[in-house]
Amino acid sequence: MPRYKLVIEYDGAPFCGWQRQAEDPTVQAALEDAVTRFSGETVRLTCAGRTDAGVHAIHQVAHLDLVKAWRTDTVRDALNAHLRPQPISVISAEIVGPDFDARHSAIRRHYRYRILNRRSPAALTRGHVWHVPWPLDADLMQEAAQRLLGRHDFSAFRAAECQANSPVRTLEQLDVTRTRMGLFEEIVIATSARSFLHHQVRAMTGTLMLAGCKRLSADDVAEILATKAKHRCGPLAPAGGLTFVGVDYAEK
Amino acid sequence: MPRYKLVIEYDGAPFCGWQRQAEDPTVQAALEDAVTRFSGETVRLTCAGRTDAGVHAIHQVAHLDLVKAWRTDTVRDALNAHLRPQPISVISAEIVGPDFDARHSAIRRHYRYRILNRRSPAALTRGHVWHVPWPLDADLMQEAAQRLLGRHDFSAFRAAECQANSPVRTLEQLDVTRTRMGLFEEIVIATSARSFLHHQVRAMTGTLMLAGCKRLSADDVAEILATKAKHRCGPLAPAGGLTFVGVDYAEK
Repeated sequence: MPRYKLVIEYDGAPFCGWQRQAEDPTVQAALEDAVTRFSGETVRLTCAGRTDAGVHAIHQVAHLDLVKAWRTDTVRDALNAHLRPQPISVISAEIVGPDFDARHSAIRRHYRYRILNRRSPAALTRGHVWHVPWPLDADLMQEAAQRLLGRHDFSAFRAAECQANSPVRTLEQLDVTRTRMGLFEEIVIATSARSFLHHQVRAMTGTLMLAGCKRLSADDVAEILATKAKHRCGPLAPAGGLTFVGVDYAEK
Repeated sequence: MPRYKLVIEYDGAPFCGWQRQAEDPTVQAALEDAVTRFSGETVRLTCAGRTDAGVHAIHQVAHLDLVKAWRTDTVRDALNAHLRPQPISVISAEIVGPDFDARHSAIRRHYRYRILNRRSPAALTRGHVWHVPWPLDADLMQEAAQRLLGRHDFSAFRAAECQANSPVRTLEQLDVTRTRMGLFEEIVIATSARSFLHHQVRAMTGTLMLAGCKRLSADDVAEILATKAKHRCGPLAPAGGLTFVGVDYAEK
């Protein structure tokens, strides 16, 4: 019974997140249904990062087991054929050992958050950025971000409905950079950790936004973290700006 | 009667091109209607590059005249408010002299064409790339592209309905580069000229695609140009991959 590892790209906009729900369309349900239509088998996919409604992925990883051994190219192409016209694309399929688990074998997740920081709204990047029309200082955001690195209780940046056993996480990277692509004045936040709490990246982003417009200092951000002062956080940054960009697995 | 220069970004997908038509939605009509709603004036916009249906712009330039002198920030913000929810964004507005003409003062137009060159279809970039699933050699495309540079009769790469007086154009740049952004295997074509014939960039792109998969040599492409052998060209590349990225004006 071979196990397949899939690398998946999707536009999160039309989906109520990764995880299968009774009624609403989800990425997991779309993929599992596509597997059934091509193979006749009923499967359950496990992914590296269960993204929320509206969150995108350029490199989600999932695994599934099939009774029949198919060529990996066939799995990839058949899934893409059955996924059409939904904005989900299986980039690659490979056979992995039975000990590979897309979720539990992951040692690091990478996310990217895009802020469009200019007066005028997004046209071409609509739904893929958070439009913040007032000026943000990316250097101040970066300074505040560095105060969140390391192992901490991230309760301040945790959704009420977060189901993690512990609010302690180790933030390995949180870098804020201003980029200019033509007239796209973007601020990009790149972050990595073994795992994140529910809403953690979006909550940190909203708070860094307040640092960028000087409504919070880096010391304030450190204090919010230390005192779990959720009420002093910025707004939860919208889902569309967030993309799951990758996951690392330990070498054998 | 002040003249305003606008810089405009738009997603071409929902529009039947720039130019106003009797019935169908166009970028020009959306902008002119927004001007009327905010100012009460009926105006006609002139743009640097009249893009076709489905073609995007990150830096379109247009001019219009208004009887009343408004603050430029007011023009920009009022237009954006009235354009909502259409994917058109006025990035800037400035007052220019009466001799400035967005179309006739332009000395160089810049376009970019994006090809997604991988087996799996686009998910996140759908509608913004041409998906070519078979392998393309960007170096061969670049070699063929260089044979099109300079002043030539571009009849081979001209739409039947092209209304230009002459098929002669001077192609200043046509560069083909493979880029990797994560798993996005893209081939980007950057091109510049004082002006282009109708469909010229998309026709050249389709022909370069054939060079990339070795169905045409660089010599073949040069011969197609020289002999105006339109029937030997590649397919017209789809509109969604094309973006108007900029325009140069002469210094005063």
